[in-house]
Amino acid sequence: MIDRRYGSEARRLVLATMSIGKALVLTISDSAAAGKREDLSGPEARKILQESGFDVSAAEVLADERADIETRLRRASDEGFTLVVTSGGTGLSPRDVTPEATLAVIERNVPGIADLMRIESLKITPKAALSRAVSGIRGSTLIINLPGSVKGVRECLAAVKPILAHAVETLKQSSLNCGES
Amino acid sequence: MIDRRYGSEARRLVLATMSIGKALVLTISDSAAAGKREDLSGPEARKILQESGFDVSAAEVLADERADIETRLRRASDEGFTLVVTSGGTGLSPRDVTPEATLAVIERNVPGIADLMRIESLKITPKAALSRAVSGIRGSTLIINLPGSVKGVRECLAAVKPILAHAVETLKQSSLNCGES
Amino acid sequence: MIDRRYGSEARRLVLATMSIGKALVLTISDSAAAGKREDLSGPEARKILQESGFDVSAAEVLADERADIETRLRRASDEGFTLVVTSGGTGLSPRDVTPEATLAVIERNVPGIADLMRIESLKITPKAALSRAVSGIRGSTLIINLPGSVKGVRECLAAVKPILAHAVETLKQSSLNCGES
Repeated sequence: MIDRRYGSEARRLVLATMSIGKALVLTISDSAAAGKREDLSGPEARKILQESGFDVSAAEVLADERADIETRLRRASDEGFTLVVTSGGTGLSPRDVTPEATLAVIERNVPGIADLMRIESLKITPKAALSRAVSGIRGSTLIINLPGSVKGVRECLAAVKPILAHAVETLKQSSLNCGES
Repeated sequence: MIDRRYGSEARRLVLATMSIGKALVLTISDSAAAGKREDLSGPEARKILQESGFDVSAAEVLADERADIETRLRRASDEGFTLVVTSGGTGLSPRDVTPEATLAVIERNVPGIADLMRIESLKITPKAALSRAVSGIRGSTLIINLPGSVKGVRECLAAVKPILAHAVETLKQSSLNCGES
Repeated sequence: MIDRRYGSEARRLVLATMSIGKALVLTISDSAAAGKREDLSGPEARKILQESGFDVSAAEVLADERADIETRLRRASDEGFTLVVTSGGTGLSPRDVTPEATLAVIERNVPGIADLMRIESLKITPKAALSRAVSGIRGSTLIINLPGSVKGVRECLAAVKPILAHAVETLKQSSLNCGES
């Protein structure tokens, strides 16, 4: 689509303009927040979202503290992020509270996104049933929980990649133009 | 099953008696409610439900106003409808609030019905993951959200058609006779 | 794993030590609680869980009374049960309230377990969509609703068997060691 004569800098500018939305990646992990291990899943999510056309300014890291996660998610919505992707804290261990924090801030649930990720991941491992990930909308921000592993991030984003652009477009749309034909 | 000698009028009467329940079809759409476009999905749902043995008196149209939708759903349950099927307002656009109105009035969730519709529709398009449709029970009324498109109505009703009769029968049943063998 | 020289009694002791957790089976059925029919699904669940390595002391029977079910579930969690499996009360009939009782006591939902059971059962019968079963965590107790039929218990436990051990292990784990690699 972009004329190759204009070189890489021009292409970068045009691609930036073509961004389908501003996205935030939030890694949620006690150990990564404490600096005890390197955050690998956040950068992986960032890379995949950038390839999908999102403008991902940065990947942040938070501890598994429900109140802190809720505060950051609310602020992200106020700041105008189109998409917030969390990684981690979706399992069954006592400190895993990302889904609860997400449920507390979303105004409208979009269960089909989390279900699609589970269904696709179940084709790889039955343990996918243990991801408690949720997905939903706050204002005009779509929030999606991903697992904490790099492998889980890859599998889940691969599952939802085909619908992400349509999802964030619809979020901005008036209902008059949506789903009626 | 009905002896053909009795002619079409007799057959009509017998079929009416054999109706598996009174159903209401509610199209939820700002543009259809404002008369800006013809409602096509409601009549489609009505036709399919009639073919499935339901007595569908009429298809009504409402705007995407959460309070109005809740009021109509509550009244439909009081009026003794066995089944209420909504069409529209299940997407991600800001005016889409049918699932929230439905969640506010149901007393018992039946997630498997909405999930079955999504799973079957996912075989046709990944965008099915973006339907936020819910399904549940208020009193002895089963409420099912469908998408706003004619295509979506057809796909989703095809998915649940095999279980609708059993579902509404069970609703009327005493628990002593149910699911124990 | 256990040296065969030590005989069956020693093996029994070692296996008891190796138990992956204490489980409670709760059959929820008006007719079984009233002694009008024999409880078959509870003993079936007990047998399968024992084969899976759980220590199942007993199978109890309760009527379809929401308050009583909630009380028993709360107490089971306080008593330190790792797993509570209910059978019955998940359908659409007016007395079916097991999912509502379960939702009232769990602190964290694990939707993927109930979804996995529905998805696997859907391969056998579309009526599986009508199970309203939920699954979730209270304290360090995993609670899973199963249908009331012996066939349903078998199908659903077969679906979740591959993940039960991992689920209860994760429940006890610190989040630092979980799901990050």
